[in-house]
Parts: sequence; C-alpha cells; structure tokens
Amino acid sequence: MYSVVIVGSGNLATQLAIQLKKNKFLIKQVYSRNLNNAKALASLLNTQFTDNLSKLFDADLIIIATKDSAIEEVLTKINSTSIVHTSGTTSLDIFKNRFKNYGVIYPVQTFKKNIEIDFSKIPICVEASNKSFLSDLISLSKKLSEKVIEIDSHQRKKIHLAAVFSCNFTNYLFTIAYEILENENIDFSILHPLIQKSINNLKTNQPNRIQTGPAQRKDLNIINEHINLMKSKEYKEIYKLITNYIIKRNE
Amino acid sequence: MYSVVIVGSGNLATQLAIQLKKNKFLIKQVYSRNLNNAKALASLLNTQFTDNLSKLFDADLIIIATKDSAIEEVLTKINSTSIVHTSGTTSLDIFKNRFKNYGVIYPVQTFKKNIEIDFSKIPICVEASNKSFLSDLISLSKKLSEKVIEIDSHQRKKIHLAAVFSCNFTNYLFTIAYEILENENIDFSILHPLIQKSINNLKTNQPNRIQTGPAQRKDLNIINEHINLMKSKEYKEIYKLITNYIIKRNE
Repeated sequence: MYSVVIVGSGNLATQLAIQLKKNKFLIKQVYSRNLNNAKALASLLNTQFTDNLSKLFDADLIIIATKDSAIEEVLTKINSTSIVHTSGTTSLDIFKNRFKNYGVIYPVQTFKKNIEIDFSKIPICVEASNKSFLSDLISLSKKLSEKVIEIDSHQRKKIHLAAVFSCNFTNYLFTIAYEILENENIDFSILHPLIQKSINNLKTNQPNRIQTGPAQRKDLNIINEHINLMKSKEYKEIYKLITNYIIKRNE
Repeated sequence: MYSVVIVGSGNLATQLAIQLKKNKFLIKQVYSRNLNNAKALASLLNTQFTDNLSKLFDADLIIIATKDSAIEEVLTKINSTSIVHTSGTTSLDIFKNRFKNYGVIYPVQTFKKNIEIDFSKIPICVEASNKSFLSDLISLSKKLSEKVIEIDSHQRKKIHLAAVFSCNFTNYLFTIAYEILENENIDFSILHPLIQKSINNLKTNQPNRIQTGPAQRKDLNIINEHINLMKSKEYKEIYKLITNYIIKRNE
C-alpha cells in the first residue's frame, strides 16, 4: 500500500497524515465535510482536498479518521476496495458486506492538531477482515510505530474504556486538584513531582500494589477532615465514592 | 540546627533521615514504638535507637515522622525546645502551649522505605510558631530540597487533599484500567505512552483545558457502549459519576 486518502481533518487525521507523509506514503487527497478544514489540512500536506464524498479519489487505502458518530454515514457514500477506520470503540463489523478489504488502525493515544507527537512510541492496534489485508495493515503500521499489535474489536473497546479511566478521568481529578489549590493561590506545579513519581512507580508496579493515602490506610480522621475541608458537593461525592471503594477492597 | 532525633521509622522517617544524614546532619537517635524497626533504621543510619519516649536524647530538633494518629500521644511524652512534625493534614496547633519552638516540615511526596528518591526535587512546605524558628526550618529544608515554601496549616491541608485527588485517586483509576485490560489478557503497558503523554501535557497546560474523551465530547453513543461493556457495579458507578460531572461542566 502506497497511496492513501484521508477522510477527516481533526486531531487524529492531522497527526496520522503527517506521519504517513513523513514515511513516504502518498496522501492523494483529504476529505472534510467542512471545506476550510479540508483545505487547511491539504495545504499542510501539499495535496488535494474535497468536501464531497462522491469525489473521493481512488487510492490503495481509504483511512476514515472522523469522529465515531460520523463513520456510518460516511461509509454509505464511499466505494473502495480497501478501507480502515481509526476508532477505539466502533466495531469492525460496521464495514461488513460493503467492502472487500476492511480493517481498523487504532493508535492508543489522544491527539491535538497542533502538537507534534512521537508516533513511533504509540502502540497501534490493528484488525482486518482477512489475513492478507491484516498483513498489509501491519506492514503499514510498523512504518509508523515500533509497537503494533493485533487486537479484535471487543478487546479494542476494552482498551479504549481503560484509556478513559486512565487519562480522561484522571485528568478530571487533576482538574479538581488544580481548583482546590487555585482557591488557595497555590500553584498546581507543587504537585508535579508527586504526580510524575506516581506515574514512574506505575511503570514498574501493578497499580493496586502501590496504592497509598488515607483511604488505603483507612485513616478515618483524615478522611473526615478532608470531607469537611470541601465545600463543593461534586468534590465530596467523588471523594467519598472512590475512598469507600478503596476501603472496601482492603476489607 | 545540626543534631536531630527522628521519631518514627516508617517510609517518610526513613527517607528523611537518609537525606538529613547525607547533608551532614547528626542523627543522634531513632525512636519507634517497635524496637526492631527502631533498631533497623538506626543500623542503616549508624546511630542509637530506643522504643521508650522518656529516653529520647536532647537534640537541636525533634522530627516527628509517625502516622498522623500517633502524633498527639507521642507529644505528651516528649520534652523539647524545638520540634516539628511532617504531616500534610495535622495542624500546627497540635503543639500549642507545650513547646517553645514548633513547626511543620511537609515534603509533598509519597515515600516507600526501600526506594531511594531524589529529595532535591520534592517541594517542602514549612510552617513555624515564630519567625526565628521559621528561618531555621527554612535553612534546614533548603539543604534537602530546591523548592521550599512557607505554607500555613489550612493551605497545607488543601495541598494534601489535592494530592489525594491527584495521586491516590488517580492510582485507583489506574487499578481499574489495569483490571479491565487484565481481564482481556492485555498488558497494562499498552497505556503507558498515553498516560505519560497526559502527564506531560499537564506540566504546560491547565488540566481543564486539555480534557478529552467521550464525556468531554458528550458522545452519548460511546458512553452508553462503555457502560454496557462493564459488568462491575463499581466501575459503572465511578464511570457514570465522573462522566456526568464532565458533561455538566460543559453545559
């Protein structure tokens, strides 16, 4: 596979297209339903663009990198022999009976359009409708990343779910911590070394084995004092729920 | 201040004593209510030990590094002119009317006995009963760490609370993610690059500005699919609570 058409112009579409181009793939065309976005990404890649799915070029591979909710509709308007999507949660079956070769390339990462990223370290989960196409997708993915794994749709959904707990929800807890400190005019950076250390520990230990804190020690005095310190119903609710579950596990 | 007595033999007591010794402080004695623990730490530091608080040596500074719930009782048995504790949540007032110079040295970090740590990067929060003692504690702390900040008891408790959200609770979410993947025989390390990237983003951005994920996009299809994927009542409950709060903030 050599020539590629990118459907989508968001964060993942942008980063993936950049990485493909770097690795000598020919990006023949970019589609976005928003013509300006299509144009902007095409200009970055020095290629063609369209906002009309019936005008997609032929290519060795069509890569759908839209949001999940748009995939179904986009598919009804595309004819292609070889096609993939890049979603963590959409099943492989969405392509069924419509295409000869279909599959998934799911990079386990969140992307921002304007922040360049070292793609080589991002695990890529690959799935395909047949062995020969799987082998094509693995070859392509190995040019982008050092870590390529065959993962079925069910497992991929679980990885995405685990990623939500590990990154989206943790980031939300950081938001709460940030606000607690902001309220006292304390810079959140005071927690950076502690957070980085916790993440480092995570790389060599199972998380359940490195759990610390008042809930882990069942230190009810501190737990009660913390609850009294918080005015926000939201903070209290999240604090109590997670604390109770940590305590429960140790009983 | 030059000579120090350490009350406690746990993770923080151990790491703090090692760091003090490295910086040429004289550790005169180690106390633990468990004689074997006292002996083990004293042997590591090549110093004296006791399990009897009435036999504490005189020193320039007594450092109480026990668990929070033990501080009150320990204090009733100690006579000293200069004393500090190291707790995130116990107020400075616990020393009131008992000592001439009292204060707090709170390193913002979690500690494990056997894992050596680069103390120089750990922020140390300092508080004291009077200006001259504060200045002594700041001098001592600056020998241990590059980042020493004067923080009052109320602020310190808020820092500790924020640390619980940022490290204890996030670690618990990692535990859930680990279990979700373990159930599918997928190694948790597949999420390491994603987690590290999120933490890196946190160092240069406010967490609320880098929130991503299905809840942030209010992608109800994926949210429902995730909820259906989970059998555990616990996972569902935490997932729903945090998801709803993320959605609510964007409304």
